[in-house]
Amino acid sequence: MKLKFDYNNMMESSIGTHGIKQSAIDKAAKAHEAAYKEVVDNSGKGWQGWTETPMIDKATVDELNAFGKSIREKASSFVVLGIGGSALGPICVFNALLHLHHNELNEKMRKAPKIYVEDNVDPERMAALFDVIDIKTTYFNVITKSGETSETLSQFLILYNALKKAVGEKAAKEHIFVTTTIGKGALYAAAEKEGFKIFGVPAGVGGRFSVLSNVGLVPFAVMGIDIESMLYGARAMRTACERKDIYSNPALMTAYLQVLSMKDGKNISVMMPYADGLKTMADFYCQIWAESLGKAVDKAGKTVNCGQTPAKSLGVTDQHSQVQLYTEGPYDKVVTIIGVDTFGDSVTIPADETADIGDFLKGHTMNELITAERKSTEFALTKAGRSNFTITMPTVDAETVGELLMYFMYQTAFAGAYLNIDTFNQPGVEEGKKATFAMIGRAGYEQKLKELESAVKDEKYIIS
Amino acid sequence: MKLKFDYNNMMESSIGTHGIKQSAIDKAAKAHEAAYKEVVDNSGKGWQGWTETPMIDKATVDELNAFGKSIREKASSFVVLGIGGSALGPICVFNALLHLHHNELNEKMRKAPKIYVEDNVDPERMAALFDVIDIKTTYFNVITKSGETSETLSQFLILYNALKKAVGEKAAKEHIFVTTTIGKGALYAAAEKEGFKIFGVPAGVGGRFSVLSNVGLVPFAVMGIDIESMLYGARAMRTACERKDIYSNPALMTAYLQVLSMKDGKNISVMMPYADGLKTMADFYCQIWAESLGKAVDKAGKTVNCGQTPAKSLGVTDQHSQVQLYTEGPYDKVVTIIGVDTFGDSVTIPADETADIGDFLKGHTMNELITAERKSTEFALTKAGRSNFTITMPTVDAETVGELLMYFMYQTAFAGAYLNIDTFNQPGVEEGKKATFAMIGRAGYEQKLKELESAVKDEKYIIS
Repeated sequence: MKLKFDYNNMMESSIGTHGIKQSAIDKAAKAHEAAYKEVVDNSGKGWQGWTETPMIDKATVDELNAFGKSIREKASSFVVLGIGGSALGPICVFNALLHLHHNELNEKMRKAPKIYVEDNVDPERMAALFDVIDIKTTYFNVITKSGETSETLSQFLILYNALKKAVGEKAAKEHIFVTTTIGKGALYAAAEKEGFKIFGVPAGVGGRFSVLSNVGLVPFAVMGIDIESMLYGARAMRTACERKDIYSNPALMTAYLQVLSMKDGKNISVMMPYADGLKTMADFYCQIWAESLGKAVDKAGKTVNCGQTPAKSLGVTDQHSQVQLYTEGPYDKVVTIIGVDTFGDSVTIPADETADIGDFLKGHTMNELITAERKSTEFALTKAGRSNFTITMPTVDAETVGELLMYFMYQTAFAGAYLNIDTFNQPGVEEGKKATFAMIGRAGYEQKLKELESAVKDEKYIIS
Repeated sequence: MKLKFDYNNMMESSIGTHGIKQSAIDKAAKAHEAAYKEVVDNSGKGWQGWTETPMIDKATVDELNAFGKSIREKASSFVVLGIGGSALGPICVFNALLHLHHNELNEKMRKAPKIYVEDNVDPERMAALFDVIDIKTTYFNVITKSGETSETLSQFLILYNALKKAVGEKAAKEHIFVTTTIGKGALYAAAEKEGFKIFGVPAGVGGRFSVLSNVGLVPFAVMGIDIESMLYGARAMRTACERKDIYSNPALMTAYLQVLSMKDGKNISVMMPYADGLKTMADFYCQIWAESLGKAVDKAGKTVNCGQTPAKSLGVTDQHSQVQLYTEGPYDKVVTIIGVDTFGDSVTIPADETADIGDFLKGHTMNELITAERKSTEFALTKAGRSNFTITMPTVDAETVGELLMYFMYQTAFAGAYLNIDTFNQPGVEEGKKATFAMIGRAGYEQKLKELESAVKDEKYIIS
């Protein structure tokens, strides 16, 4: 494992009264053992298929790479159609491992097609996409585990129609490949009928835990990312997350510290990477943490309404936005800082610059500055008695990103086990889906439409 | 005022026990009057210079437009160097009012230079910028109210140096214009000495309240945005926010509802626009709300540690990420939904598409779908007893964006007045700044460096 986890500043010894006593960790040995067993003993079983995703063999990786290369060589643009768990993996890895202005690079500098991950049904965004792609040389990966996601199907219908008009029906089929559950759902059936290439999502792998399955790997292959190293990193993290001693197990320890903090009223979890490339890694975390732990009932059916609300923050940018609140506001949050030891570039603030300004900065690098600011925020939070911990990545590369993604999955699974909830379901989104079907006029939802229409608004509570 | 504010779902009558009783609003008449007076009676005074920012005369607007046009005509790229309040206004307006893939459009379609707002000191991001701009035809707006912001000065030193090397010292000066406080700070002095064009930030306008001053207007002029309409919208909102009756005053009412909710344990404020173009509007809100209300002490010096943590969410995307938590998790948040009635484009899901999938979607528009999903989320939150209110924009244009920005400022000012705190300061960021100066070796911070170095880490609390 290349990542380092420093949770000193979660502890009473660093931050005082709002911190955690070591005795609170030590006396919960049974809880640790139970959480550990629930996750580790069930590896690969039920909804824990995700633990096995990094275990694919060399031949499968080779196949993915060959496929990715074939697309990369002929595509001017590559578009993922997906939402939620089908989008966040591709987005965060694209952002972390490709050039920060990838799509704006000229073709010589760009080593992969332009990449778009379309995870909304905003009509302006769809229209905007058509303005910047040449559809004749654009390839589409339609990703939905269930094969039934309305947003993704809408996008697919629009783009497939446009493709057929642009290149003809036969060629259009070559521009689309789908990632879905084999043998199930509307997308699988349509793909079979139309003759699209199909990649399967393995059983027991939920959307938000699917980044290291074909859901992520197919786009990563097209992006030209070193999948083998990423899976190597994920496996290394799996090994670390299977360590029995909580003091050696980063996911088990930090899950417990978060759960203890939640019980102590810290209902907010801030994810604050100090690197623009990791900005959307916070989005990945926000989904897995929110949707897994935000649950009305526990496994015994008892109403618990638990969950910790994740909030994204970006260092150093949000020091000028959020840190005032973090240091002086309520003691209601845990801040996770992600630091990077060595950046992919080094930029020096010129020592020879003649402008008579900022002399104390001259000769330093931006790398020094961003690192000093990160450590300063850690220092200021700690001095103010605020819970924070730091994950350090030596560099941001496929291997360490693989580690980080796997860590997020294990941490979430352990936290759900500590909370005794179903980490892997999402019953709370059904009501909204039904209401959408009703409003869009889908057959079978007439009763729901009546319920929707019966909601009365008091004009007194509307200001215009 | 074109915006509409519907707070039915904040009230007990809609959401039940977790809602607000109308009597709680009515019995606080004195608090409303006091908050109203503190903000409205002090318009333009002290740190409330921001209330006057939309009042500039036609001639000033004309000058800005002419300047913007002159840059627009010769610039291939336009780069804002700024952070926090100096960046978020330009970012959110750029995102809301220009093409969603503006920088990727070809020159014919693009009506303004490529736009970059550099609000971090990540070396990879700075290096990436150099890869996509042609510095010889790039113009830079350096924005810092204090003229002392380390991050912005660092960027300036790097880019000015590079500019001089690329176009020579004399021409380089023409590529830079600064926005700062006239007569104060290092940047003003340097600009005078170097001969850069200078735009002033008026007195009494703090960074996070400066979007409608030159801090925002100069970049907006370069972007070709209709400044006059934006200021017109802001003035219309000001008029609405000066209405005495709380039931007619959107900012006063929603500030009070948020403050009541905070006191009831709802320490999280989710901002959830249903439009990709408004995604970064949530960032603007997050800054003004967090930094203004997150305060350790009230005006009487009493320790209060107040503040509500803002969280960004994007509809419909984050329905697949956050809504599970919002409907089933703790009753600890207020969700503000921003809806758009009419989008700038309309995209139809083709009724004639032959693929045998998603038949219930065919013939509908994406516009219908995103609107149905927004209303469904509102419905699901309400049914689950969750506090939410909706701001509706008839369209997203310069006028309505001006309204929205002004509303955020008034709402924040009223909330601060209700909380009896200093809305306009940010003492909590000083500790981090000092620590950074110490680490970077700035003279005068030797003692702070010793303090930093004295922090001891317990190896037991580090996992690697």
